Amino acid sequence: MDANRRIEGALDAAVAHLEAPGAPPRLAEALRYAVFPGGHRIRPRLCLSVARACGDDDCRTSDAAAAAIELLHCASLVHDDLPCFDDAPLRRGKPSVHAAFGEPLAVLTGDALIVAAFETLARGAARSPNRLAALVGLVARAVGAPAGIVAGQAWESEPTVALTEYQQAKTGALFAAATVTGAAAAGVPSLPWRLLGECLGEAYQVADDLRDVACRQEEVGKPVGRDSTLGRPNAAALLGMGGAMARLKRLVREAMEVIPDCPGAEALRAEIAAQTRLFLPESLARELA
Amino acid sequence: MDANRRIEGALDAAVAHLEAPGAPPRLAEALRYAVFPGGHRIRPRLCLSVARACGDDDCRTSDAAAAAIELLHCASLVHDDLPCFDDAPLRRGKPSVHAAFGEPLAVLTGDALIVAAFETLARGAARSPNRLAALVGLVARAVGAPAGIVAGQAWESEPTVALTEYQQAKTGALFAAATVTGAAAAGVPSLPWRLLGECLGEAYQVADDLRDVACRQEEVGKPVGRDSTLGRPNAAALLGMGGAMARLKRLVREAMEVIPDCPGAEALRAEIAAQTRLFLPESLARELA
Repeated sequence: MDANRRIEGALDAAVAHLEAPGAPPRLAEALRYAVFPGGHRIRPRLCLSVARACGDDDCRTSDAAAAAIELLHCASLVHDDLPCFDDAPLRRGKPSVHAAFGEPLAVLTGDALIVAAFETLARGAARSPNRLAALVGLVARAVGAPAGIVAGQAWESEPTVALTEYQQAKTGALFAAATVTGAAAAGVPSLPWRLLGECLGEAYQVADDLRDVACRQEEVGKPVGRDSTLGRPNAAALLGMGGAMARLKRLVREAMEVIPDCPGAEALRAEIAAQTRLFLPESLARELA
Repeated sequence: MDANRRIEGALDAAVAHLEAPGAPPRLAEALRYAVFPGGHRIRPRLCLSVARACGDDDCRTSDAAAAAIELLHCASLVHDDLPCFDDAPLRRGKPSVHAAFGEPLAVLTGDALIVAAFETLARGAARSPNRLAALVGLVARAVGAPAGIVAGQAWESEPTVALTEYQQAKTGALFAAATVTGAAAAGVPSLPWRLLGECLGEAYQVADDLRDVACRQEEVGKPVGRDSTLGRPNAAALLGMGGAMARLKRLVREAMEVIPDCPGAEALRAEIAAQTRLFLPESLARELA
């Protein structure tokens, strides 16, 4: 089965469990709304690509890892869009969860998606308890304090921001989780795979900065120009468009070079090249080639 | 070591991991503030009491289960107190987290505590991967959708409330998690222990209703009279003080009767009698005897 079908199938199964009889109907609706339709599913694709490069001998476990990573990404989008953070009216081309369902359900939707990520791991990897133990720890590290995406968001509430920690935690941590959980789901040591995820996370951050500066809202499905409005650092503003594009290319090249030795390294390089083209809308991606 | 020291020690270790170098300092401060000083730690005490009644042959795992349950309880308090829910200014006799640290950090503190619960399980039960797998599933079920505490809170956003589902999810689910994870941490089947937790959860809900109607703010450390203000069902308002007290006694008696056969059943009965006395402040607890 191709990666796209695996990811959508695993996410659908995870959300279906949350909609079981007895669930509050509007919460159930908000949960599905927050997960479908998705964006490019960049992080779970990366997770499955790494799992495949490492042999992928246990698809239920790698599907669960990929779905968990995406559920956590969706949770972070729902909470980041809240009025007390970005107060974003749009996400993926439609009203954000709090705009559509109200603030209380948006808080609870994020909470429930975080929990669902761990439940999905427990269910999917039930027959591989040793891999499950590794996965729960890796995923928790990527999301919580001191250095996961929640900590990344929290840097915005500090009087002085540690810029490297901020960006690594806010974006890099979940990309690193995608690569290390892909390896752990396939039963191989995860540590050598962290650097690849960190490189790609940094590349994605630069691409996101480029989109914020150079694209129209319709192209990216969310408001643009937010970094300038919210006073956040932006690579395209700091380095210029050309400088940021050069940096993005360099990071993608570096990612290719740090792929650990593994049976499927060549195929993985091709997949990563295809996936990184999705970081930018077509108008910009042409310049990346 | 006595239960109190085990619980505080396990919670302190869990929070210390969140404060590691690189953590955003105010988030780290808010996390410790949300967990210490605690209340009566009723749920983790119940978890450890059940573990002990079942042999408790793996203290690191039962400590982790107890700490995870309490971290999730703290997370739910932080999010329930948010302006978009109860807008509560006080908790455990001091300003609530959002009152002390602002709304963004309160949202993130709750998120990070949810994640920390699972990380604590993964770390504490690392040498018992089969028990870990059971624990992650049981804890996730108690917290998320369709029937955990997040779903319980979400019923407040529904146009019509299913009262039984609401109360079972909002209060009962975490008490049930305390008993089943206590058993699972000791390596015995958890299902027979669910009913005990559900009984005690219902008893706690009645006690909480009594406190809301009959106590002063200084006795309970949070605002009272909230159910009436917020239009929520309250057993003491529905049944009268005498009726609610009789119901509480009946539920505690029922709890004693549904304790499964186990080596430490007698000691467990005594511990539960002591713990349920903590459900009410002294002025009311005398009437429970």
